[in-house]
Amino acid sequence: MIKAAFSVLLVLVAMSSIFAKYIPKTGKRIPQTLSRGWGDQLIWAQTYEEALFWSRSRNKPVMVIFHLEDCPHSQALKKVFSEDDQLQKILDEDFTVLNLVYETTDKHLSPDGQYVPRILFVDPSMTVRADINGRYANRMYAYEPSDISLLISNMQKAKKLLKSEL
Amino acid sequence: MIKAAFSVLLVLVAMSSIFAKYIPKTGKRIPQTLSRGWGDQLIWAQTYEEALFWSRSRNKPVMVIFHLEDCPHSQALKKVFSEDDQLQKILDEDFTVLNLVYETTDKHLSPDGQYVPRILFVDPSMTVRADINGRYANRMYAYEPSDISLLISNMQKAKKLLKSEL
Repeated sequence: MIKAAFSVLLVLVAMSSIFAKYIPKTGKRIPQTLSRGWGDQLIWAQTYEEALFWSRSRNKPVMVIFHLEDCPHSQALKKVFSEDDQLQKILDEDFTVLNLVYETTDKHLSPDGQYVPRILFVDPSMTVRADINGRYANRMYAYEPSDISLLISNMQKAKKLLKSEL
Repeated sequence: MIKAAFSVLLVLVAMSSIFAKYIPKTGKRIPQTLSRGWGDQLIWAQTYEEALFWSRSRNKPVMVIFHLEDCPHSQALKKVFSEDDQLQKILDEDFTVLNLVYETTDKHLSPDGQYVPRILFVDPSMTVRADINGRYANRMYAYEPSDISLLISNMQKAKKLLKSEL
């Protein structure tokens, strides 16, 4: 009987050490995702260097999304963006995707300033496609939720030029 | 009766459009996490630039982990690393953390070459702490699973020098 109790205790101790995990004082956190809600099914590059590497090796243009988690314009665009099946499918099949909440040191990614949300395309030759822009003259690379179809047609542009350049 | 059936159909159609989500041909994927298994409760910087920014503004040293998902040495270290409560607690409270599967353009982060797993410390003054290393002469910044206590004492070093420099 004592033996059995001891065995149970041993198993419990072993189990607790297997499942021992650090929990912050402020409570358990939800792990951060690389997608940050812009498309959980897409395979995201972590850094710009990584995105350029994949773009070159797979010959697929990069879409870079600059955004901020607590920016309502970013949030509104993200909702429509992540729920648009057509957009997500094209991105998954024909693009390298990167979303950043922090600016890079590369000035080419901010042709008319650093604002969010802002979407830039980069083709596999590593040229930033400053010619592909949205509908706002003062923020050329900004998109609003109602601009999704323009964004999709811009994605087609980013793909087309690439092919015609080959 | 027909009206009721129509209502049900309408609700079903509405629900399916609400829950419509892009699913890749190859099947649903598990979203990528920024932690990549090195500590789901830690708050990870996405890029080196972001890590340096947080390091300076919070006055906490950076730990940079270079690893590869399909490298058995990285995997073995990751398991011990993520399960060590003491290590995770210190990282959460006193460090800015970054894990990378792709090299940066900054040569200071590869003082003796680009290999994985490799752990570098950077203090808030943006100096890479090349003086804090593991026990292997040919790969100065490599750690094996059995080196966790050395890694923790190196973390204390990274913290100490910072304070004495103030």
